Amino acid sequence: MESKRKPYQLVSREWKQTDTIIQLKNTQIGQGSVSVIAGPCAVENEDQIFTICEFLSKQGVKVVRGGAYKPRTSPYSFQGLKKDGLILLRQAADKYNLSVITEVMDTNLIDEVAQYADILQVGTRNMQNYQLLRGLSKINKPVMLKRGMSSTMEEWLLAAEYILSGGNDQVILCERGIRTFENATRNTLDLGIVPLLKSISHLPVIVDPSQATGHRDLVLPMSLASVMAGADGIMVEVHNHPEEALSDGAQSLYFDQFKTLAAKLKLASDVLGKPLDLENEKILF
Amino acid sequence: MESKRKPYQLVSREWKQTDTIIQLKNTQIGQGSVSVIAGPCAVENEDQIFTICEFLSKQGVKVVRGGAYKPRTSPYSFQGLKKDGLILLRQAADKYNLSVITEVMDTNLIDEVAQYADILQVGTRNMQNYQLLRGLSKINKPVMLKRGMSSTMEEWLLAAEYILSGGNDQVILCERGIRTFENATRNTLDLGIVPLLKSISHLPVIVDPSQATGHRDLVLPMSLASVMAGADGIMVEVHNHPEEALSDGAQSLYFDQFKTLAAKLKLASDVLGKPLDLENEKILF
Amino acid sequence: MESKRKPYQLVSREWKQTDTIIQLKNTQIGQGSVSVIAGPCAVENEDQIFTICEFLSKQGVKVVRGGAYKPRTSPYSFQGLKKDGLILLRQAADKYNLSVITEVMDTNLIDEVAQYADILQVGTRNMQNYQLLRGLSKINKPVMLKRGMSSTMEEWLLAAEYILSGGNDQVILCERGIRTFENATRNTLDLGIVPLLKSISHLPVIVDPSQATGHRDLVLPMSLASVMAGADGIMVEVHNHPEEALSDGAQSLYFDQFKTLAAKLKLASDVLGKPLDLENEKILF
Amino acid sequence: MESKRKPYQLVSREWKQTDTIIQLKNTQIGQGSVSVIAGPCAVENEDQIFTICEFLSKQGVKVVRGGAYKPRTSPYSFQGLKKDGLILLRQAADKYNLSVITEVMDTNLIDEVAQYADILQVGTRNMQNYQLLRGLSKINKPVMLKRGMSSTMEEWLLAAEYILSGGNDQVILCERGIRTFENATRNTLDLGIVPLLKSISHLPVIVDPSQATGHRDLVLPMSLASVMAGADGIMVEVHNHPEEALSDGAQSLYFDQFKTLAAKLKLASDVLGKPLDLENEKILF
Repeated sequence: MESKRKPYQLVSREWKQTDTIIQLKNTQIGQGSVSVIAGPCAVENEDQIFTICEFLSKQGVKVVRGGAYKPRTSPYSFQGLKKDGLILLRQAADKYNLSVITEVMDTNLIDEVAQYADILQVGTRNMQNYQLLRGLSKINKPVMLKRGMSSTMEEWLLAAEYILSGGNDQVILCERGIRTFENATRNTLDLGIVPLLKSISHLPVIVDPSQATGHRDLVLPMSLASVMAGADGIMVEVHNHPEEALSDGAQSLYFDQFKTLAAKLKLASDVLGKPLDLENEKILF
Repeated sequence: MESKRKPYQLVSREWKQTDTIIQLKNTQIGQGSVSVIAGPCAVENEDQIFTICEFLSKQGVKVVRGGAYKPRTSPYSFQGLKKDGLILLRQAADKYNLSVITEVMDTNLIDEVAQYADILQVGTRNMQNYQLLRGLSKINKPVMLKRGMSSTMEEWLLAAEYILSGGNDQVILCERGIRTFENATRNTLDLGIVPLLKSISHLPVIVDPSQATGHRDLVLPMSLASVMAGADGIMVEVHNHPEEALSDGAQSLYFDQFKTLAAKLKLASDVLGKPLDLENEKILF
Repeated sequence: MESKRKPYQLVSREWKQTDTIIQLKNTQIGQGSVSVIAGPCAVENEDQIFTICEFLSKQGVKVVRGGAYKPRTSPYSFQGLKKDGLILLRQAADKYNLSVITEVMDTNLIDEVAQYADILQVGTRNMQNYQLLRGLSKINKPVMLKRGMSSTMEEWLLAAEYILSGGNDQVILCERGIRTFENATRNTLDLGIVPLLKSISHLPVIVDPSQATGHRDLVLPMSLASVMAGADGIMVEVHNHPEEALSDGAQSLYFDQFKTLAAKLKLASDVLGKPLDLENEKILF
Repeated sequence: MESKRKPYQLVSREWKQTDTIIQLKNTQIGQGSVSVIAGPCAVENEDQIFTICEFLSKQGVKVVRGGAYKPRTSPYSFQGLKKDGLILLRQAADKYNLSVITEVMDTNLIDEVAQYADILQVGTRNMQNYQLLRGLSKINKPVMLKRGMSSTMEEWLLAAEYILSGGNDQVILCERGIRTFENATRNTLDLGIVPLLKSISHLPVIVDPSQATGHRDLVLPMSLASVMAGADGIMVEVHNHPEEALSDGAQSLYFDQFKTLAAKLKLASDVLGKPLDLENEKILF
């Protein structure tokens, strides 16, 4: 849709026509199905993360999210369990055969996080942390690059270009809402960018409606909307006790809400003729 | 989802629990189905508007949109056919049994526009034109209130409150994208506000993905996404010769694109158990 | 600073090299001095407006501002004294030899407001109310066009172009802050646009730091900053009892604050070699 | 001006009433005078940086800025001379008795940059790079924290709180423009935040009008405006051959422009009764 010369290259469909597929041990992302990544905002303790992983596994989820190093606006907020959190997350994921995605906040932490994670996430505040992007371009694991909360599509693609140009072509883009004047929702989910990205780039696009809206009741409709917009999947926050969560409780789904979401996602995926990547589809639907 | 005292009253669900239904001569909006409003950005000439109305009628569309008085950023741009446009639009609509929605830009034009239109539209630039809102609160026709391009949800609901408090409770809200730093799309469609509005207010909510995105290729996915977000319908631009349109050609659907959209909308509406308000459903699907 | 072809013409310096000067009965705006427009947000009663006008007159102010028709976000807020307010404002201004600027909200009100005002103000919400702009292009009085709260400079200049192209070249631009994500101040005052406007356009530029910041303590520094940015003057809110004001009390200056402001403005104007247009300069400084 | 409980503590005036003063070997920042930091966007070669430092020294400048590690939106843009740049910058600064400020982009680079710089700058993209902030909280050198381009004042102060709470109270805040819908200027300089910051926090506030506006012709007026807004100083880009600069040439001042700026800054500082921290004041004025 744009004719002017683009400043990015490796991330573009002109460079590579076919969709990039992210291969995990237990599934794929970007191969034409709808992926569902779920889990708590933060790993809080052994009971919490094992309970959640068990539930997600039963629902057919393949990838669990969970923060161990948490970038918090205030230095006085809960900062995550750090390495202990990574260990717990890995143990729980292994027990229930899940892949792990978790955030890496700094070049010094790449090796540690890469030891426990299957996908390394770059958070919205670090989208233009170029040393971190360069560091991640040298590892042999997929990277999920969240959109900066005030980044244009072009800047986002150029941030991805940093990773690809450094040698790592396993990049997933994640739209998580942008900052606007509207404060009725936490951020403004920019779904219009999703089909535009899919036409311009070969990289898979995931949408995070939990971070974007900040209200758990908005997660279901916006997840379905994300699928319709052409996303390769969604990433949602789920908690066994949202009201007791140490962070982001207001936007975390209850288990029952997740079950309803899964059922609706199946119907929405059908509209587009895409399979929903929840292993136990037969059981659920 | 909010507990603080709200500054609006008549538009809220606390005031009126049941959905407001807009009764037109040939259909309803807001009664639980998915409405489809379509038509050109502007009425250009007799051949154009009759051709488009004939097409839309065959597709089962019940409400045609078309601008006669056009609010244009530049005084040197095409400003619409004015009264001649209203007359043509009414004639074409009557021939094909369509209801008419068109914009009213000024208090002085209310009587004239109300003579030809079934729904009077307040454009994004006039959302806080309070004299106009007061004028429209005194008429006996439905009003579609487009969101101001930089308006918060609260300001939007307060603008609607002007109309209801003046005596006209036939108000439709229309999300058409907000202004952000992102310029890859014309505006940023704020779908997250749709389910929030539906929970807070009893007024029907329509989404305009044409104005919001500015790219015709984004209209299909964003229309489906709008349905999933819980919108009571969509309003899209359709033109018999988009490449020759006097305004907004880049975001106007080709006839064939509209047919595809209609078919997909049917599937999407089914996911939510909502009927799609296209009369000839049986023929199409 | 820009080379691409501009969409506006009559407002540009390429069209007219010399500064446009607004001639009032008792002073000029845009002739190279620093103008000071002051007064209450709204005319509230006889005592209030006469007291304020007397004070302003003693300070050498030439133009009093005061709202009679108030565009309020909520229909339940004080909407102004309307015609009674216009009459009071005119009487008070005449007694103290002041020119009057007040807002016009609708085409239907142009004649009435023009009868009492020396400058007609278009508020931020009406910057793109094109029928109003066309109406104002036909009168023989100056118009102050406030920037839309989410308008680009180009859109603002095109709105001014509506007035000039209709035949009225007595236009003043007023920067009053734009809407951003930052909510520590009411709006974000965009002073960087001031010198850019002065280089691109021949129209005078006034800055309103009261509306922009929403805090009276920020009005002094931002007024001085406005002068340094190259503004042709400022417009500030002053009230005899700010804490009892019916609107915008938090951003209204106390009389003593205005005196301090006037003294500082004199020093700031001197830096740029511009006279400060306060009649009693000799007395004050 | 705000009564609700603030989420930050150490950065607030309630915690520490007196202004924080940053002590450098050759001057101070924040002690009540107007500081002038100047230099090229990036260190490019020996001739360039020595020529510029010689010029700045003659103008009485005490602190030179210059990028060695450059955070660039595209991986294909000039990324800075890295360590070689640091060495050149230090040598030139030492020859002309200047303090050095330069950016640190990553925790891994703190030690290296701290070896050559007197003030370590955190760029706008790293304002919420919390690992970096924590790293900088452990060093014994001043840190200049640029505002994130979409950060609220509260987030900015909380980022500073990370540094103070970790043990380093030598923090300078730098306003450099925020991202809005307006693209006539590179960013929107938010001067209204400056007096608000000065009332809320004891930290010195510097304004960068070069980054904010992107046009060298806007640097003079916005520098003067910054002083009037209450800033403790400005940071501007100066280059011996702006048209040949490897980055940000359009916003770099010519030497002659800097001389004019210095003379005007003197007058502006006088208005507020502040000394201008340019050593050779006597010569210049």
